[in-house]
Amino acid sequence: MKKGIGHHQVGESFDDFLLIKDAAKGVASNGKPFMTLILCDTSGDIEAKLWDAKTEDETTYTPETIVRINGEITQFRGRSQLKIMSIRQAQTAEGVQVADFIEKAPVEKDELAEKLTEAIFEMQNPVLQRLVRAFLKKHQNDLLLYPAAAKNHHEYVSGLAHHIVSMLAIAKELHRLYPEVNKDLLYAGIILHDLGKLKELSGTVTTTYTLEGKLIGHIPMMVEDIGRMAEQLQIEGEEEVLILQHMVLSHHGKAEWGSPRPPLVREAELLHLIDLIDAKMNMLNRALDKVKPGEFTERLFPLDNRSFYKPVFD
Amino acid sequence: MKKGIGHHQVGESFDDFLLIKDAAKGVASNGKPFMTLILCDTSGDIEAKLWDAKTEDETTYTPETIVRINGEITQFRGRSQLKIMSIRQAQTAEGVQVADFIEKAPVEKDELAEKLTEAIFEMQNPVLQRLVRAFLKKHQNDLLLYPAAAKNHHEYVSGLAHHIVSMLAIAKELHRLYPEVNKDLLYAGIILHDLGKLKELSGTVTTTYTLEGKLIGHIPMMVEDIGRMAEQLQIEGEEEVLILQHMVLSHHGKAEWGSPRPPLVREAELLHLIDLIDAKMNMLNRALDKVKPGEFTERLFPLDNRSFYKPVFD
Amino acid sequence: MKKGIGHHQVGESFDDFLLIKDAAKGVASNGKPFMTLILCDTSGDIEAKLWDAKTEDETTYTPETIVRINGEITQFRGRSQLKIMSIRQAQTAEGVQVADFIEKAPVEKDELAEKLTEAIFEMQNPVLQRLVRAFLKKHQNDLLLYPAAAKNHHEYVSGLAHHIVSMLAIAKELHRLYPEVNKDLLYAGIILHDLGKLKELSGTVTTTYTLEGKLIGHIPMMVEDIGRMAEQLQIEGEEEVLILQHMVLSHHGKAEWGSPRPPLVREAELLHLIDLIDAKMNMLNRALDKVKPGEFTERLFPLDNRSFYKPVFD
Amino acid sequence: MKKGIGHHQVGESFDDFLLIKDAAKGVASNGKPFMTLILCDTSGDIEAKLWDAKTEDETTYTPETIVRINGEITQFRGRSQLKIMSIRQAQTAEGVQVADFIEKAPVEKDELAEKLTEAIFEMQNPVLQRLVRAFLKKHQNDLLLYPAAAKNHHEYVSGLAHHIVSMLAIAKELHRLYPEVNKDLLYAGIILHDLGKLKELSGTVTTTYTLEGKLIGHIPMMVEDIGRMAEQLQIEGEEEVLILQHMVLSHHGKAEWGSPRPPLVREAELLHLIDLIDAKMNMLNRALDKVKPGEFTERLFPLDNRSFYKPVFD
Amino acid sequence: MKKGIGHHQVGESFDDFLLIKDAAKGVASNGKPFMTLILCDTSGDIEAKLWDAKTEDETTYTPETIVRINGEITQFRGRSQLKIMSIRQAQTAEGVQVADFIEKAPVEKDELAEKLTEAIFEMQNPVLQRLVRAFLKKHQNDLLLYPAAAKNHHEYVSGLAHHIVSMLAIAKELHRLYPEVNKDLLYAGIILHDLGKLKELSGTVTTTYTLEGKLIGHIPMMVEDIGRMAEQLQIEGEEEVLILQHMVLSHHGKAEWGSPRPPLVREAELLHLIDLIDAKMNMLNRALDKVKPGEFTERLFPLDNRSFYKPVFD
Amino acid sequence: MKKGIGHHQVGESFDDFLLIKDAAKGVASNGKPFMTLILCDTSGDIEAKLWDAKTEDETTYTPETIVRINGEITQFRGRSQLKIMSIRQAQTAEGVQVADFIEKAPVEKDELAEKLTEAIFEMQNPVLQRLVRAFLKKHQNDLLLYPAAAKNHHEYVSGLAHHIVSMLAIAKELHRLYPEVNKDLLYAGIILHDLGKLKELSGTVTTTYTLEGKLIGHIPMMVEDIGRMAEQLQIEGEEEVLILQHMVLSHHGKAEWGSPRPPLVREAELLHLIDLIDAKMNMLNRALDKVKPGEFTERLFPLDNRSFYKPVFD
Repeated sequence: MKKGIGHHQVGESFDDFLLIKDAAKGVASNGKPFMTLILCDTSGDIEAKLWDAKTEDETTYTPETIVRINGEITQFRGRSQLKIMSIRQAQTAEGVQVADFIEKAPVEKDELAEKLTEAIFEMQNPVLQRLVRAFLKKHQNDLLLYPAAAKNHHEYVSGLAHHIVSMLAIAKELHRLYPEVNKDLLYAGIILHDLGKLKELSGTVTTTYTLEGKLIGHIPMMVEDIGRMAEQLQIEGEEEVLILQHMVLSHHGKAEWGSPRPPLVREAELLHLIDLIDAKMNMLNRALDKVKPGEFTERLFPLDNRSFYKPVFD
Repeated sequence: MKKGIGHHQVGESFDDFLLIKDAAKGVASNGKPFMTLILCDTSGDIEAKLWDAKTEDETTYTPETIVRINGEITQFRGRSQLKIMSIRQAQTAEGVQVADFIEKAPVEKDELAEKLTEAIFEMQNPVLQRLVRAFLKKHQNDLLLYPAAAKNHHEYVSGLAHHIVSMLAIAKELHRLYPEVNKDLLYAGIILHDLGKLKELSGTVTTTYTLEGKLIGHIPMMVEDIGRMAEQLQIEGEEEVLILQHMVLSHHGKAEWGSPRPPLVREAELLHLIDLIDAKMNMLNRALDKVKPGEFTERLFPLDNRSFYKPVFD
Repeated sequence: MKKGIGHHQVGESFDDFLLIKDAAKGVASNGKPFMTLILCDTSGDIEAKLWDAKTEDETTYTPETIVRINGEITQFRGRSQLKIMSIRQAQTAEGVQVADFIEKAPVEKDELAEKLTEAIFEMQNPVLQRLVRAFLKKHQNDLLLYPAAAKNHHEYVSGLAHHIVSMLAIAKELHRLYPEVNKDLLYAGIILHDLGKLKELSGTVTTTYTLEGKLIGHIPMMVEDIGRMAEQLQIEGEEEVLILQHMVLSHHGKAEWGSPRPPLVREAELLHLIDLIDAKMNMLNRALDKVKPGEFTERLFPLDNRSFYKPVFD
Repeated sequence: MKKGIGHHQVGESFDDFLLIKDAAKGVASNGKPFMTLILCDTSGDIEAKLWDAKTEDETTYTPETIVRINGEITQFRGRSQLKIMSIRQAQTAEGVQVADFIEKAPVEKDELAEKLTEAIFEMQNPVLQRLVRAFLKKHQNDLLLYPAAAKNHHEYVSGLAHHIVSMLAIAKELHRLYPEVNKDLLYAGIILHDLGKLKELSGTVTTTYTLEGKLIGHIPMMVEDIGRMAEQLQIEGEEEVLILQHMVLSHHGKAEWGSPRPPLVREAELLHLIDLIDAKMNMLNRALDKVKPGEFTERLFPLDNRSFYKPVFD
Repeated sequence: MKKGIGHHQVGESFDDFLLIKDAAKGVASNGKPFMTLILCDTSGDIEAKLWDAKTEDETTYTPETIVRINGEITQFRGRSQLKIMSIRQAQTAEGVQVADFIEKAPVEKDELAEKLTEAIFEMQNPVLQRLVRAFLKKHQNDLLLYPAAAKNHHEYVSGLAHHIVSMLAIAKELHRLYPEVNKDLLYAGIILHDLGKLKELSGTVTTTYTLEGKLIGHIPMMVEDIGRMAEQLQIEGEEEVLILQHMVLSHHGKAEWGSPRPPLVREAELLHLIDLIDAKMNMLNRALDKVKPGEFTERLFPLDNRSFYKPVFD
Repeated sequence: MKKGIGHHQVGESFDDFLLIKDAAKGVASNGKPFMTLILCDTSGDIEAKLWDAKTEDETTYTPETIVRINGEITQFRGRSQLKIMSIRQAQTAEGVQVADFIEKAPVEKDELAEKLTEAIFEMQNPVLQRLVRAFLKKHQNDLLLYPAAAKNHHEYVSGLAHHIVSMLAIAKELHRLYPEVNKDLLYAGIILHDLGKLKELSGTVTTTYTLEGKLIGHIPMMVEDIGRMAEQLQIEGEEEVLILQHMVLSHHGKAEWGSPRPPLVREAELLHLIDLIDAKMNMLNRALDKVKPGEFTERLFPLDNRSFYKPVFD
């Protein structure tokens, strides 16, 4: 199996297909135009400069285009760069597809769908079950494809579903330990808490924020959607609906993190904590995977910019 | 005209009707039951202890009851207290009514209604105008009666409408100074920004927070209501709807003050500032009204706990 | 079964044994001495005033004495008080013991001991296992009796062991979900993280802080103890020892919460999160247990002073 | 009318006069000297590199010199740069003047002077009027020329007077709405609040901070100047003088923003709010003027680094 | 020598003269008037209640009156109280004076004056020396009598001069260690840094804040006074004057502590640190003086509310 | 005497020996390898680029190598750079040694050792004296060589001992002023407070952090070491040991600065303040030494990023 771009060392040469994730024009200090390309495969991404770019290059080398590149890994200001020797667009005949270059969840879409269905089967409260079922039906396709975020954690195809399914597994165990917890409520909160991201994020490949995402954000959007869905299902006014809206609203834990109300219901507090654990473990596992025992990871911005150490012993 | 309870000095006697705003039972250090009453008229409120309270007193002296009290103004731990000599329930024949004892806005309901109508007439953007009109129609009665808050500013009958109308006057002038400002948008934001309080607060007399108010808060509730109203009016998806939702969402200015998004549109920033000015001036004017030139007001908690000085010169 | 003092309502009479948890002298406004007693049974505690206290009362009614009290539940400044009609010391013949009045963990000591032993059996890393085993042996008795804190969470007999055992259960499940996690390291961190409390806290009944606890704190004391124990076991210098010290040091998560280093190892981060979950759930479950559906709990200071709502639906 | 440098797009050529705002020497990686010039006209400014600069270039191309440049707009690290093809000093005969290249307030100096005079005429309190009149006389020339700040808001010729006059207009309207406000005091505070900037800033063209400005700042300097002026006018000890000093001292609102005392007088609070509004609207209007509907502005540092959205609808 | 009121224990009787520091009227729960007196001698102060106070009591027992009291030390809510058995005004013939009851610096006024003179003699920079000399002459009397603060540190007669003289001693030694430090500048800063308190505080006995103190504060007032004094001495514009103003302005160290500019000159930084040391040591020494070895002091609010431990060993 | 690299101006040529402090490889935009060297002598350091670096250059020009360089001082992005004309390794015959290029404390090692010995002689408390003596003996060599920090203050050979000795001098004087202070305790705290750095830092030349330093930090490590040393000396359990551990633990003053307990003993507070003074004066004196009167220093990051002004007058 070929080594991905994320695993090449400085000084190695490279000759393979890559996907253009982002492309920007610039003018060099000698007055000539150049392009900055962000290239990726499923193992990571790298920056490359295309010097003396011609006008047709700008129309050819656009985001979501697959290219064949021969070059060398160099270093600039402490970050890897790919020095381009030659570049060309991939041919249809070469049989490469955009999906082959994008990172995916380590669990298959079908398995994720199945786990979600199982969770709903376990639920007994009819109001909560109907609400959750209605949302899953409405967002069936996107839910199984979207990342959980534009960056930081679960930022890959099916990332959102992967995040939900992991959280459900934690919830199941915590419910066993703390039987006072209302499992149906916790399940419903977990499944719905981030569905507003389907409106906040632009899509699955080169994910950016929508205007609605920037001006309102996924949390208030989802609170609104639960209200409307309850109206459609004619369960408006049920306490379950209010509590679910509260759980979505409060799941970031604090006002300064985007939740105008902090968790004020036990299951809301637990939802917040389970979300934290799964997001942090996802970031940590992937960062530690890239370093050797005895080394520190790169600084992880969403983890307060810490570098983590990977012990040598087992 | 009779002097209200808010203007009596320590040492004066008092003999008049008052409204019970709040009533709580206690047991004195001698083991006998007593009641703590909060009594008010339109000029303010005062605490009173009813010693050796009998069982029937507890059922007689309940909130929203009018009583005739003979007593004296005393002082306890730096705060005024009314020492009860005699107390009895008011008789129907005495012709006193609850409404006579509750503070009202200094502007009449009808005038407030008229000013709101005028503002809507000035608006030319059809989407914004329809939305605002629909909300005013829906909340016609409550809007002209509700306070703007449970305490702190405009916490009196018609306080919400009074706050809106004052803000509209400021907006009109600022639009004249800064003609780039979209007046229709600013008007719409001002009229709708606090309507969620009609769901957040329990009512006009002894105002408390509803369960929905505690768990969701007026801001996300109103964002949801604008979305639903837009759906009903079939203007969903218009940019005006999104921007209005953003204005309501951001009008507290910062995440830690309850706005998950800060203002990101010029008119949203202006809405936040106009809201600040009118709320602060309302608090300041009423606090300064109670002290003499050369004195400081009591500490005003929502104004960072400051005491304000009232100069002697004109 | 008799109703504990924690479940009596204001106005009810009371006639039973209680344990004196704390006793303080005072002088009333009439110049006569009185005593303030904090009385408890396993269901909670209550304050009582003993008016006109005589000199012999002060020597009789001391902490950890059992008394028979006849009285009535009253209320003072919003808190329950026990009005004493008669009080006397319990007689040996009456067969009541201090231990009968102190709250205990809901799991038996023996079961807790067994679970700890099981966890150690699961561990395979010899350095970690030896260290943990040595500490358990050293603190065998105290560990199964001490509370996990002087107040806030698990503040009952065997609270520390109960906290550890609950955390081990969570750890076991999270290891299943995230197999990259080093289970031995996580187990060792969980078992040792709070053992410094055995030096920080004065004991199991009327728990206060020792001088060492006030000036150094349980975290640096335990870091030191791990270093010394490693020296004794001649495993000093092994990386496991350093990482374990780091886990104990960082388990409060942030410098301002008492950890001079934040977690910089994956298992340290997880230890911090598991600690948070179990402490919070313990507080929440016990607070919610005291209120009825549809009500809010009292404010919980260590949970950012929040009141939590208990939903009505199941 | 010619298009200013602020409105040229990357890729366009440029051939016109510009003013040198700042000039700095450097040595290129090839060891040869170069100069970095900041060039401006009334529409904005741009950076340019003069490669292989000779010794005489350094003495010719100094700040406040007008040059004729032929070049092209390029881009470097996301910012526009002017690539110089040829450069020469402007000739006297070409009739260009420094003043033609510097941004000015959108209102004429004479009109600003007139508005200030009108405001003073409206004032009736003799102490306040004399103080204000004396300061206007003392700073007559500078006041009508200075910017209100070195950057951020009203940073153009006559910016300070423009800022004051706008604030006076807002004050006039707010006084109409809140008649309790002491208009004379508010006017006096507005006119004097920033006069310390005449000592804090170096001048009108290439504005920097004076040593006094860096070590003391405009607020304490102006408090001192009011005290001295009052002494000269023999009105020292009048309460108006003290209150005016307080207003200047407190107009930044909070200690961490440079006001050792927060506003403790109603008109001081209002002064702070009016200052905020006019400064923010000045920044916002100018930033939004540079983008098209549907776009976001660049990040505005003094507005908490926010990007503002310009709606598409009217 | 008689034992002062600050050293009596609860339960002891008391029969001696005391000075009334503060007196306030109240109405007891039985409706009768009473007075709360704060009584002091040089060893400390204590609260006392005068029950059933008559009208003439209010005019007799006013602040700064000396009284003879027979009573007993009791305790109320954890604080000592003096229970009054009998009280009467002191007679002229009894030869007691107000000054005998007020705490003084442990160093005599004359010695403090001498140390100040010595410091000035050491100074060689003529501008600094003239400025300091002029201020000492102007405030000669007050400077040797005023406290350094209304509470917290050096809050006794001659406290300000005592604080200055202690700081000068520290400065002298630090100059020896760090000869780069400009001793004259440091001395001048130390002597002048708190002179604004002579305007900020009302006097030496029952010290409160003046209106000027509340609205402007001692720091900006002193900056102004240095400017005016320099004008009088015709040394305005000398750099020494500006740097001295900066030192006074910045001596609280941070904007949030009242210094709009932080120290930006070496001697200003050192002034801030020396001020910290002497203020903290004064508080600490006096608090530790009141407890026995092995005990903790009461909480010291200006020291971040810490309780300090007094070790047992020497 | 030759002028060190720290005192050369831009534009001057340079021909002398320098020590390589750090060396890193890079690839230039033309694709060719280069090296970035940090070169130093005792007067400071400078960056240099070695373009077109060959493979042997990478093995020759490594840290702690002495090189002979001919070049010129240039400027890049506001910082000095050394442009290399020629470079070669120093020959043994040229008689230059690494130690000649490393900054040392301005006081000789022997003198520092003597001062430490004197301090111990002054101590009378046997427990404290024995502890301190034991540590000095244990770390005899390193203590006289190590820097006090990797950067910021006293970051030169013998910096730690220099810092300790300066602090002892301040302590001696403060003890004279405040005789209540326990001098032995303060001396012991000063000598031991930073000894943990001998484990935290890698060494004296190119100082970095050890793994133990990163995961535990010098403060908890030293607390542990004091505990162990006390055990060895059989003085475990003495109060002096506990208080000394507390002093080391709390000497950073606040939890967010790395001290899990704030100072709770007078001498601990004083230790913290003396540490602050000496560290700040060391930074300030060295920064001011590099600028001329009338100029500002570069920004000093550990001093809140301030630039300090150097006055012109004496």
